Amino acid sequence: MLAHRTIALDAMGGDHGPNVVVEGASISLTRHPGMDFILYGDQKAIEEELQKFPALAERSKIVHTESVIAMDAKPSQALRRGKGSSMWSAIEAVKNEEAHVTVSAGNTGALMAMSKLILRPMSAIERPAIAALWPTVKSECIVLDVGANIGADARQLADFALMGAAMARALFHLERPSVALLNVGVEEIKGDEDVKQAHAWLKETNGLPLDYRGFLEGDQIGQGTVDVVVVEGFAGNIALKTAEGTAKQIGQYLRDAMSRTVFSKLGAMLARGGFKVLRHKMDPRRVNGGTFLGLNGVVIKSHGGTDALGFASAVDLGYEMAQSGLIGRLAEDLVTFHHRIGQNAAE
Amino acid sequence: MLAHRTIALDAMGGDHGPNVVVEGASISLTRHPGMDFILYGDQKAIEEELQKFPALAERSKIVHTESVIAMDAKPSQALRRGKGSSMWSAIEAVKNEEAHVTVSAGNTGALMAMSKLILRPMSAIERPAIAALWPTVKSECIVLDVGANIGADARQLADFALMGAAMARALFHLERPSVALLNVGVEEIKGDEDVKQAHAWLKETNGLPLDYRGFLEGDQIGQGTVDVVVVEGFAGNIALKTAEGTAKQIGQYLRDAMSRTVFSKLGAMLARGGFKVLRHKMDPRRVNGGTFLGLNGVVIKSHGGTDALGFASAVDLGYEMAQSGLIGRLAEDLVTFHHRIGQNAAE
Repeated sequence: MLAHRTIALDAMGGDHGPNVVVEGASISLTRHPGMDFILYGDQKAIEEELQKFPALAERSKIVHTESVIAMDAKPSQALRRGKGSSMWSAIEAVKNEEAHVTVSAGNTGALMAMSKLILRPMSAIERPAIAALWPTVKSECIVLDVGANIGADARQLADFALMGAAMARALFHLERPSVALLNVGVEEIKGDEDVKQAHAWLKETNGLPLDYRGFLEGDQIGQGTVDVVVVEGFAGNIALKTAEGTAKQIGQYLRDAMSRTVFSKLGAMLARGGFKVLRHKMDPRRVNGGTFLGLNGVVIKSHGGTDALGFASAVDLGYEMAQSGLIGRLAEDLVTFHHRIGQNAAE
Repeated sequence: MLAHRTIALDAMGGDHGPNVVVEGASISLTRHPGMDFILYGDQKAIEEELQKFPALAERSKIVHTESVIAMDAKPSQALRRGKGSSMWSAIEAVKNEEAHVTVSAGNTGALMAMSKLILRPMSAIERPAIAALWPTVKSECIVLDVGANIGADARQLADFALMGAAMARALFHLERPSVALLNVGVEEIKGDEDVKQAHAWLKETNGLPLDYRGFLEGDQIGQGTVDVVVVEGFAGNIALKTAEGTAKQIGQYLRDAMSRTVFSKLGAMLARGGFKVLRHKMDPRRVNGGTFLGLNGVVIKSHGGTDALGFASAVDLGYEMAQSGLIGRLAEDLVTFHHRIGQNAAE
């Protein structure tokens, strides 16, 4: 699979704009030589950055845009005034089939609102979701929704399961990814009615392109127990941020512990190879990039504050998603599934 | 404050029964000499364990009970058949003012159901909550609800804020604890209507016995940004479990990293003092114990699988809560608050 793929970049998005976007794209290009880029934003600023990376410059086209969506713009404002901005234009490139995927480090709310407006949800999908890659002790899993919506009904949760499975097929190359519904551990209240109904559908519907494993508690996500973890967006966003916060907190504990005494300092120095591996494993830049799923086109959201290495991870992810033909296959899965639950309901 | 306090122990609760409960109580007694105990359960089994701890035996009374609530019993079963069990009797001791607090490592659902039935929710409270102590880089904060209920409306969230503040006053000895509502980070969807309404009430109501700080994202919990974090029980339970899982995951990474090469092994040995401090900080047994808040009496739930050290933490927590006169003060706060939001609504 070395098909050429064109990546539309919102060069003005994020806290650092073209500076980080261009360098990030250049890093990703060394890893995936089969990419071309269209960079949307201020022509002069982008050209200046591109001069530093001739290999990237050769594979890049710049489309000048005048306006930029502010990082604190409200989604409704962004929709009203955003037409022609770097973000808008980068998304339109996917709609117009000039690019296979869009990557932006801009304002999440604005990016989602514009993506919905321009690309439209897939016909069977009520709500798109944001999927995160989550590092596990085994490798990585996919968690969705991490914040596109608050709440999800049973049908939406089941759709998220199919969407997550499609992404796992694309990224992990698994034919039947394992999927679980995130739930709480106390027996009596084991999920609200929507979680229970989604569970029943996923369990009872035959022939789904996934291996449904039932409920999962929060402490199992990082153990890599399943490939795809499904949860509504409020709890999913909180889980993701809490995991990030806990990793940071333990990093602080570790630094404090290693600088306590001369022995621990010496020991840490001796073990620096090990700590380097650990730092790499815990580096949030390795898995940067939220994937908008359920639209007629793939949009990747990079953290706004990340550096070039982090942005490169988001571009890598965009490339892998663009390689996969995910949307066509997902559309078929959704039609089949909705047909089957329709039959079940009619029985 | 060295008033004597009587602790009712469900000696049969948890995976290990009297074995862990008795040794745990004995450890806690060395830290808080002002405790007496009533142990509910199989007299012979408890006596056998108590023989090993003469100082504890001197301060303990045994009340023999015949039945035990199974760890996998459904709450509804436990309510129907649980009368006279060790768990039931230990809770009744608080209702009958024979003990100041109950500690059990038994089945959470059964313990909550019985506690609600026997102790009853406080008059102004619609739903009790389970509050967890959460380690932070500064010290600890309180997070509630971590799983008593799924979902919470605005009024319940505001009540949780007052309940958490009362607990923070009791444990941290702060007159006006800082409180925040846990929320998601995406602007447009910043909380559902209940979270927004609770935010408005907490912000606008004057004279509350707390310092309301607005919204907080999941990554800030472990930074100790506030003393009390309020969230509905589904997301709260998932956040708690996710943090536990992330800590475990990073522990695994760290062990792997430190055993990679002979240098990292040597370094880890040299730095073992530092690692010991780290292990202590990350030890989940240090903060074992969920507090049931909003009932006419305090019940502490210990992890079922913990050992004596972990159970001792739950007993410590019970003692500190029993010391504090929390319920009387909380009852006043609730009356005042509900009166004020009533006034606001009438204006």
